[in-house]
Amino acid sequence: MEFDILLTNARIADVFRYRLFEGWIGVRGGRFVAVEAGDAPAGIRAAETHDLAGRIVAPGLIDSHLHIESSLLTPRRFAEAVLPFGTTTILSDPHEVGNVAGEAGVRWMIAASQDLPLRIYHSIPSCVPATAPELEWTGEVFDAGAIQRLARQPSVIALGEVMDYRGLLGPNERLRAIVAAARENNLIVEGHIPTLSGLELSQYLAHGISSDHTLTFAAKIQEQISKGLAVMLQTKSVTPENLAAVADLPDRSHIILVTDDIEPSLLTDGRGHLSRIVALAIECGMPPLEAIAAASIRPARYLGLRDHGAIAPGFLADFLVMDDIAAFPPMQVYVGGQTVAKAGAMAAPITRENPAQPDYPGIPGNFAADDFKLDCHGRGGSAQAQIVALQNRHSTLTRLEQATVRLQAGHALFQADDGLALASVIARDESSRTVGLIANTGLKQGAWASSVAHDCHNLLVIGRSPAAMAQAANAVQRMGGGVAVAWDEGLIASLRLPYFGLLSDEPVADVADGLAAVEDAMRGLGAHQTRPFLTFSIMSLSVSPYAKFTDRGIVDTESRRLIQPISTDV
Amino acid sequence: MEFDILLTNARIADVFRYRLFEGWIGVRGGRFVAVEAGDAPAGIRAAETHDLAGRIVAPGLIDSHLHIESSLLTPRRFAEAVLPFGTTTILSDPHEVGNVAGEAGVRWMIAASQDLPLRIYHSIPSCVPATAPELEWTGEVFDAGAIQRLARQPSVIALGEVMDYRGLLGPNERLRAIVAAARENNLIVEGHIPTLSGLELSQYLAHGISSDHTLTFAAKIQEQISKGLAVMLQTKSVTPENLAAVADLPDRSHIILVTDDIEPSLLTDGRGHLSRIVALAIECGMPPLEAIAAASIRPARYLGLRDHGAIAPGFLADFLVMDDIAAFPPMQVYVGGQTVAKAGAMAAPITRENPAQPDYPGIPGNFAADDFKLDCHGRGGSAQAQIVALQNRHSTLTRLEQATVRLQAGHALFQADDGLALASVIARDESSRTVGLIANTGLKQGAWASSVAHDCHNLLVIGRSPAAMAQAANAVQRMGGGVAVAWDEGLIASLRLPYFGLLSDEPVADVADGLAAVEDAMRGLGAHQTRPFLTFSIMSLSVSPYAKFTDRGIVDTESRRLIQPISTDV
Repeated sequence: MEFDILLTNARIADVFRYRLFEGWIGVRGGRFVAVEAGDAPAGIRAAETHDLAGRIVAPGLIDSHLHIESSLLTPRRFAEAVLPFGTTTILSDPHEVGNVAGEAGVRWMIAASQDLPLRIYHSIPSCVPATAPELEWTGEVFDAGAIQRLARQPSVIALGEVMDYRGLLGPNERLRAIVAAARENNLIVEGHIPTLSGLELSQYLAHGISSDHTLTFAAKIQEQISKGLAVMLQTKSVTPENLAAVADLPDRSHIILVTDDIEPSLLTDGRGHLSRIVALAIECGMPPLEAIAAASIRPARYLGLRDHGAIAPGFLADFLVMDDIAAFPPMQVYVGGQTVAKAGAMAAPITRENPAQPDYPGIPGNFAADDFKLDCHGRGGSAQAQIVALQNRHSTLTRLEQATVRLQAGHALFQADDGLALASVIARDESSRTVGLIANTGLKQGAWASSVAHDCHNLLVIGRSPAAMAQAANAVQRMGGGVAVAWDEGLIASLRLPYFGLLSDEPVADVADGLAAVEDAMRGLGAHQTRPFLTFSIMSLSVSPYAKFTDRGIVDTESRRLIQPISTDV
Repeated sequence: MEFDILLTNARIADVFRYRLFEGWIGVRGGRFVAVEAGDAPAGIRAAETHDLAGRIVAPGLIDSHLHIESSLLTPRRFAEAVLPFGTTTILSDPHEVGNVAGEAGVRWMIAASQDLPLRIYHSIPSCVPATAPELEWTGEVFDAGAIQRLARQPSVIALGEVMDYRGLLGPNERLRAIVAAARENNLIVEGHIPTLSGLELSQYLAHGISSDHTLTFAAKIQEQISKGLAVMLQTKSVTPENLAAVADLPDRSHIILVTDDIEPSLLTDGRGHLSRIVALAIECGMPPLEAIAAASIRPARYLGLRDHGAIAPGFLADFLVMDDIAAFPPMQVYVGGQTVAKAGAMAAPITRENPAQPDYPGIPGNFAADDFKLDCHGRGGSAQAQIVALQNRHSTLTRLEQATVRLQAGHALFQADDGLALASVIARDESSRTVGLIANTGLKQGAWASSVAHDCHNLLVIGRSPAAMAQAANAVQRMGGGVAVAWDEGLIASLRLPYFGLLSDEPVADVADGLAAVEDAMRGLGAHQTRPFLTFSIMSLSVSPYAKFTDRGIVDTESRRLIQPISTDV
């Protein structure tokens, strides 16, 4: 009997029976080959032996629903950010990169995920584009053929969240063909179910949907479990009320903890990645061993990863050594029997290079102040405008309002306290653009521009001053993508995101600092949102209630109708 | 909204939450598309509507570990036998046919399972042969290549039970390669773990084994669950003590009910197939809804059959209509939304033909009494014999004894009450044969012969009279396989098994009657076992303790050594 690693005097987290037991562990060839109660027998040889002195060994955490792009990091930098906090396996849905760079973008994300110490499986984004191509400029339009081709990649195990639930139930034949192709290829089909219940929920699920991760509540959990879904709890769903409802279920195997979207500032706040959801669940009343199970063996089994997610013989030796059951960051993180992180930091930097980026639509540039004139059809003096008004400082909800705006040579003349700003979306291929008015951003001067502009990630520019808007937009173009804040005289702050205009290949701390500087600059110009970058970058999300900007105009997101920002009948 | 079938006023079995609820169900295209609480809304149209008046709708039962061959039926006749009692999906391990006819035999079983109303998935038998080729004549020897080829069949999802656990831990390189090939092909690997625990269990599981279905007890269940296994309870394991241990587990998702081996006489006793295990579990204290779950959604999820095993939207419309939760046979059995059985009988006979049998080693014949002489090397008078002695009437356990036998012209001269009989195994290709002595069969006269002779299924003949042995053996050969009982003057009873010498294509009632007649005839000759056919047919199982016959001699099953039945040093 010989092991690569022998761990003695461990307290082993049993995620099948929700208990700790004292025992010893042998690892060979990257897998557990001995997980035994009691003391290790004499005479066992091992290349390394560690006396754990009663420390806990728990499985590495498995995140079964997330978007790497929310971190603004490339896969390798994302791996460096999350491994020290114990996330060892993820299912990544590269929805944003897919929307910018299509099939080649998804293939790049898959290639960039290979040979990392983080095990990365992939969902094929189902909603490329997220909305109808006539509402905005989009890159590729995925069809069933794209799904068939991408499903052949070994790391692809799912179709990403089917967000267009109304389309699936109704007119979206292309989406139905995509879902059918996914099922033919035996992919899991991830759901996105903010509002459906009863018969409408059943009709949506009848297409083979198997999970939901949107905001939930007790009655929703109960109905979804009874209809066979995996119920994924992300931060906002982990509440004492929900966990009490969960505790009443006799079979909790499909109650799973996920992150979905975690921003750089959260990744660097000391609470980590999926670890933060585990800790929150424990705070809200879930027993600690069960919280670990809900982030390890449960997602593993749900995803069909039969040798992931437990400290058990034959399973992959992905594990955490901790002082207490949910003491994050772990003292050590192992993947495949190798130490990858210690005391909250990577044991060694990831040295593999990113693959070359494919061709994709770049970022428009060379703007002048006059590019941000309102299209008032040659009439001077004033224009009748449709205005997208933010409802409050804490959400991305908007409503449509009407007002008359004073103009000078096409340029809006703002009052000091009118709360208005210009918003412009320029298609990545410059084939079309909009300039309109937005209310309640808080901006008093200057401008913000970003190539992160959900979900099509055209160039989005919001500002009080056309000259500053040109400065910010040109800065984004010069960086090859990113976020910039400017006033008329030049740049105040910027964050470079040169991968697809979405991702940085810098360390997470630098990206978090860069984004913090951008948000500080936004606040300096008057922005007053809780999360100004996120709020601004969603002002182009044409599926998000109730009115948003695209390069074609303003989309009434409920009726899916395009509205022109400036009426021609002034 | 239009359905193929609308079921109103149902009590729906929720196998996720272990409850019944009143509601209605819509089926379209063979799947559930509506499973709703309350009354069906007005205005729904359906091709058929059934008011269930409070009857129960439960999922069809899923048997995740069995051997069709134990029923002595071809797959289509097996389907007819089990569907009326609510088994709608099975995982079949064609271990016996594989041992007789190799890869072609497994392919035949797969082909014969297509287009039946029973959903049949397959395991590739891992132990072809079950033992070492030097101990007995075997057909093909499966290697990793056979696994790779067979894994490409869409219905293949597992490698069959890895019975040679000592071989896997020790010298059997071929078996290790087979298991590795199965894992490379993402097959589930079924275990067979009668005795291992602790570190030996872990070493066995380290090869990727994921289930056990052998006789179990509370401590074994607890260890196996903690080591990540699916614990499958068959008849002999369903006890009040075991179910009490199960009830204490917080996660019972991997406690599963299975049949393993069910004989024709049981299939016709009115308690059915997996239904009998469900009913037994309820009698032993498992809550009824949980017993249904343990035979539906749990095996479905374990097997990765994501749309099987529940009454839920998107799931296959395989369901049972019953008066009470475990009232078997169900009033109706549906598969894919079609009625396949009613009130314990098939709704319509299965009309599809079997595929043509492949070439395989036939059954030896043309025997004369002198073929059953003892090989006493030309010496007359007496011989020193090694005797395989049955230990009791209720088990297949044997021990090896020594005695001196009187001979006349090579033929054994028996005493009236010596309890002895002759046992002979003739290789299917007639390349070798044994004649030896067996004790405590009860036989006083006549003979029994069978081409069902575990696990290699050579021709096994047991009798008091060489002339009767020749009669019985020749009858088996004339039938193209089967079981025969004869005395010197001719046949007493027989059962024809012309498919591989293992299976009948007659209805289960006829096969059960035929086997009953064979066993009555065996008893008439003196056989006194509880299950004489089973006991006799296992006298050639060279892995079954402690001594068994093969065509090469007697195998000491613990040391895996061959012993000659007659010593040369008389």
